[in-house]
Amino acid sequence: MIVVMKADASLEQVEAIKSRISEEGLRPSTVEGSERTIVGVLGSITRDHETALERMPGVLQILRVSRPYKLASREFHPEDTVVQVGEVRVGGGDLAVMAGPCSVESKEQVVKTALAVKTAGANMLRGGAFKPRTSPYSFRGLGVEGLEYLAAAREETGLPVITEVMTVEDLPAVSEFSDVVQVGARNMQNFNLLDAVGQQSKPVMVKRGLSATIEEWLLAAEYILNQGNPNVILCERGIRTFETATRNTLDISAVPLVQKLSHLPIVCDPSHGTGKWYLVQAMAAASVAAGADGLMVEVHPDPDHAKSDGAQSLTFENFGLLMDQVRALSKVVASDGPVGARAQ
Amino acid sequence: MIVVMKADASLEQVEAIKSRISEEGLRPSTVEGSERTIVGVLGSITRDHETALERMPGVLQILRVSRPYKLASREFHPEDTVVQVGEVRVGGGDLAVMAGPCSVESKEQVVKTALAVKTAGANMLRGGAFKPRTSPYSFRGLGVEGLEYLAAAREETGLPVITEVMTVEDLPAVSEFSDVVQVGARNMQNFNLLDAVGQQSKPVMVKRGLSATIEEWLLAAEYILNQGNPNVILCERGIRTFETATRNTLDISAVPLVQKLSHLPIVCDPSHGTGKWYLVQAMAAASVAAGADGLMVEVHPDPDHAKSDGAQSLTFENFGLLMDQVRALSKVVASDGPVGARAQ
Amino acid sequence: MIVVMKADASLEQVEAIKSRISEEGLRPSTVEGSERTIVGVLGSITRDHETALERMPGVLQILRVSRPYKLASREFHPEDTVVQVGEVRVGGGDLAVMAGPCSVESKEQVVKTALAVKTAGANMLRGGAFKPRTSPYSFRGLGVEGLEYLAAAREETGLPVITEVMTVEDLPAVSEFSDVVQVGARNMQNFNLLDAVGQQSKPVMVKRGLSATIEEWLLAAEYILNQGNPNVILCERGIRTFETATRNTLDISAVPLVQKLSHLPIVCDPSHGTGKWYLVQAMAAASVAAGADGLMVEVHPDPDHAKSDGAQSLTFENFGLLMDQVRALSKVVASDGPVGARAQ
Amino acid sequence: MIVVMKADASLEQVEAIKSRISEEGLRPSTVEGSERTIVGVLGSITRDHETALERMPGVLQILRVSRPYKLASREFHPEDTVVQVGEVRVGGGDLAVMAGPCSVESKEQVVKTALAVKTAGANMLRGGAFKPRTSPYSFRGLGVEGLEYLAAAREETGLPVITEVMTVEDLPAVSEFSDVVQVGARNMQNFNLLDAVGQQSKPVMVKRGLSATIEEWLLAAEYILNQGNPNVILCERGIRTFETATRNTLDISAVPLVQKLSHLPIVCDPSHGTGKWYLVQAMAAASVAAGADGLMVEVHPDPDHAKSDGAQSLTFENFGLLMDQVRALSKVVASDGPVGARAQ
Repeated sequence: MIVVMKADASLEQVEAIKSRISEEGLRPSTVEGSERTIVGVLGSITRDHETALERMPGVLQILRVSRPYKLASREFHPEDTVVQVGEVRVGGGDLAVMAGPCSVESKEQVVKTALAVKTAGANMLRGGAFKPRTSPYSFRGLGVEGLEYLAAAREETGLPVITEVMTVEDLPAVSEFSDVVQVGARNMQNFNLLDAVGQQSKPVMVKRGLSATIEEWLLAAEYILNQGNPNVILCERGIRTFETATRNTLDISAVPLVQKLSHLPIVCDPSHGTGKWYLVQAMAAASVAAGADGLMVEVHPDPDHAKSDGAQSLTFENFGLLMDQVRALSKVVASDGPVGARAQ
Repeated sequence: MIVVMKADASLEQVEAIKSRISEEGLRPSTVEGSERTIVGVLGSITRDHETALERMPGVLQILRVSRPYKLASREFHPEDTVVQVGEVRVGGGDLAVMAGPCSVESKEQVVKTALAVKTAGANMLRGGAFKPRTSPYSFRGLGVEGLEYLAAAREETGLPVITEVMTVEDLPAVSEFSDVVQVGARNMQNFNLLDAVGQQSKPVMVKRGLSATIEEWLLAAEYILNQGNPNVILCERGIRTFETATRNTLDISAVPLVQKLSHLPIVCDPSHGTGKWYLVQAMAAASVAAGADGLMVEVHPDPDHAKSDGAQSLTFENFGLLMDQVRALSKVVASDGPVGARAQ
Repeated sequence: MIVVMKADASLEQVEAIKSRISEEGLRPSTVEGSERTIVGVLGSITRDHETALERMPGVLQILRVSRPYKLASREFHPEDTVVQVGEVRVGGGDLAVMAGPCSVESKEQVVKTALAVKTAGANMLRGGAFKPRTSPYSFRGLGVEGLEYLAAAREETGLPVITEVMTVEDLPAVSEFSDVVQVGARNMQNFNLLDAVGQQSKPVMVKRGLSATIEEWLLAAEYILNQGNPNVILCERGIRTFETATRNTLDISAVPLVQKLSHLPIVCDPSHGTGKWYLVQAMAAASVAAGADGLMVEVHPDPDHAKSDGAQSLTFENFGLLMDQVRALSKVVASDGPVGARAQ
Repeated sequence: MIVVMKADASLEQVEAIKSRISEEGLRPSTVEGSERTIVGVLGSITRDHETALERMPGVLQILRVSRPYKLASREFHPEDTVVQVGEVRVGGGDLAVMAGPCSVESKEQVVKTALAVKTAGANMLRGGAFKPRTSPYSFRGLGVEGLEYLAAAREETGLPVITEVMTVEDLPAVSEFSDVVQVGARNMQNFNLLDAVGQQSKPVMVKRGLSATIEEWLLAAEYILNQGNPNVILCERGIRTFETATRNTLDISAVPLVQKLSHLPIVCDPSHGTGKWYLVQAMAAASVAAGADGLMVEVHPDPDHAKSDGAQSLTFENFGLLMDQVRALSKVVASDGPVGARAQ
């Protein structure tokens, strides 16, 4: 941390800062410029230290130096993390494709979809049993019944299952039935839930919050890692911006940036990222070309009659076209070896 | 809902839309323009209907007509709701001022602060026992012990207490100890928590999510109202924008806009809304002038040593200055009678 | 400027940084922490220095210390600037109220409006002769003819006139006819126009760009000050956010923040800031309570038939109500003396 | 346009709306629902009509049906536009790669860079002679001298040249020396400049404004098309969001979305879109995979000593790596034939 003093800060004010820093068990180091004094702070600094110093007299601003996450950072863990889910490797050069319906609606629907996406090349099944909905009047999912249908579809196809958990109470059931536990965008800062998924043993996928910075997102991962669960996958699913022509703005630059800052694998969800089925293939392609470790895509046997998110769901046929293109692109990206951020 | 057809939509496509609408138990009504056909839809429409129709062939776009919230809307409940908290009325022309520390740190700290803010004119005590923190390494609150200190401060001062609940599990304790249960910004779309606070009897204050639209915020209130709890207070606490000079951007226009769209009372939190103590008084004044039904302000006996949010906390002295100004402004606003949006 | 090295930066990399700094005529000052090395940079630093150092090997990040604007900053000019426009003082505790139609439509319209707003208490006349319009098919203003009508209204009422200039070519005419030259939000970073208005003698009001940070806005003012024109007024007119219920989000916190960072006066435009006439009075009141040095408000004799921005224009009657309230609030604010940011 | 009446609107209010519509030369068409009345409006509707009706008594809201741009829309011009620049085709399946330095600094620098990017596979040369800079103290370009150096580099390499024009006054020179005239992001709503570039004969590339919606961007293109210049290229260069880890957020979904809404070619600028050289290759790859018609990339012989934007400029070597990958991806995309949005 750096404390930047005002041009007209008094000697007393600088001394007070230095005393306060020492009082906190930290070590001050002063640089006197021609225009102003700067005090470097060494030691184990917390955010609370920063805000405390920020309001002392004579202080112009506080500059942070260290990143606030440690276990999630590449500085402290240089090697890529590969999360093993059954036979699927998330990270490490493979492409994990999680596909399936937004909501589990019936056993038949989810089994049928699972067979179709497997044939097209997906290697994981997604499906929502517990659904977060903006309106209290929308369909909120089948709950445990939905989990059972997902398990049935896994039995039929061998595809591992990823599904969302919304509350600590539902976690035992979700953790038992699924292969990867998903924390949704609206729960990215539900800190008790983050603690809880960090204490169970299944891998966890954390979606980026609608207005979460990359740093806040990595701190959410840090919560889970800090509880002892090392198998964390990140999922970019679009951020909220001023643009209303798409449901969200898929921030694909998060892929190479996260790969530079962190060792955790990152996948993209172009379905929620755009909200429009006719943009999904192009954005899936873009994600893979940018180096994403996987995709999460909504597929439905009959999107026109889907109970949720029909507008962003692909038909089986369109998902097949997507997979054909994505496979070809993936080969190109893989053959180039590490580039850009990772190669740095 | 209005279905706007493409200029080149075929007669068959228009017919398919109309059939589909009827199939859903709704009623279509067609307007044929010179350039394109428009199909109005009558009946009880859900968001899921919209997304289903949006992807049918020949459709250019879907326009929503009805607002998705009902119980929270002024159209359906024209009179202002006044939430009674002990002797304090939130809404209806009075000014509720909730003040106190960000975190409850000790019994002495919270009692001392309660006495000071009461003297200055606050009529409710705020204080966090369960704290949502971006980093897992920050202070996360005293929990139930903190609730007990708040209760002690209430005993000492007579001030009703408002405090945040973060999980369904903590709700019984929070509901027992506090007079108003607060749902924080990060939990505005924690739908299970919204259901749960709707099922208990204490009034609930819902903070606006960092990137929540007014509509999504009113839908969060709708969740609570829909469970049978009519005593909902809204709290504008700043939204996330591109501007980084302030912690958030306090959207004061939410005050008159919410008062036009809804019957629920709305208060402002200039502490979180700015993140800088030296901006709090000006923004408190602005909130009251805009017609806010109350304020929530962070006050600490020694902000430099606060365990959280010191940079945005006021000293007792500065809070006294704020109250002096706010009282005077409040009188001017009250004497004018209803203006602007409410008077429309 | 501070150069933060990576934890694993080599000694050679640190030395290369220091050499490069010296090569640029600056002076390095190293602080070696337990975890990483930090290099302070002293001297006359530009943004280009920052970007050059940012990409050198071993660098984690660059932290800026100095603010990039000087003439506009309060550090370098502690006293409030008061811009004198005829008998009106913008800044220094007075309240400047600029009111009038969005577009000048006819001589009768503008004179009638000028008389009405003067009666209600406005002390400056606004009106657009050159209009920036999002669509090429919208009314783009009467041009020089409009300037003449504004001059006629000034003659009739004595109110000084403020009007927008869109291009360097139009500047001589606008500068001749008006008392204050306005640079619109869309031109806030039209740097040639900023230079040009800095070279003429009339005061200049610079509206904040739709997505301009406070820092970029003060740099726009710096362009003008740097050309020798000291009479710059800033106008907050709403920023673009994710919220679509209002046309823009009026960032009232810009008022106390600008007053802390700069000596220039700042006014608010609640008409563009909200886009809804029924929100204008509340936001005008909020602006004044926050300490704004003035207001800019759109008023039209018949908003239903206005050629532009009718939805956000006030009738004469509603403007009168606004002025009554604003006057009363202004007295309260003035009697309190400087508070908050300015008093710091 | 659709006028949605309030639930409690009176018959008189509905009649007044209908009269007003007729008065404007438009045709009303009423749909009476169980809950409220809706009035469709047929005819040649402008934005000004919308705002006028919005404020009439009894109106809940106005819904727009038609898109406000016509010449730029695919509805009115179904075939892809291909802009021919010398032998380069922008649009129509080819990949246009515009590369070169941010600023032209010397003849040697620009010629050397032109040779290098041509060798790597670029087919157009970019370089700034007139530079928009946030600070008045930054390097603002060589002006006409810079244009001459670009022309010299074209002579040497045969690469057509694209360069930015900032003002109407500079346009004759820029139009004469360059092969494509660029309108920068900060000038996307400089309407006089848009008119002027629409009146000259060289192709024009319009960068998306920092906070411009897709609709506003297409309206900027409409200005140019409306003046008679059909050769307009769009360039996505990142939008401003809350995320600060990147300079901007490159909105790659703009590529398939613009291709659906409009017939104009669209290219991406990953250099400005990210602001970090180490993210450029991944985002260039993503853009091409999403179907972009081209790329604009900053390349510098010695980015560490660039006079502007060094942090986002590629070395010759890194640009070569980028081109290798992009070429391979482009082949995959082309072989798939039209997909997603375009195929709809």
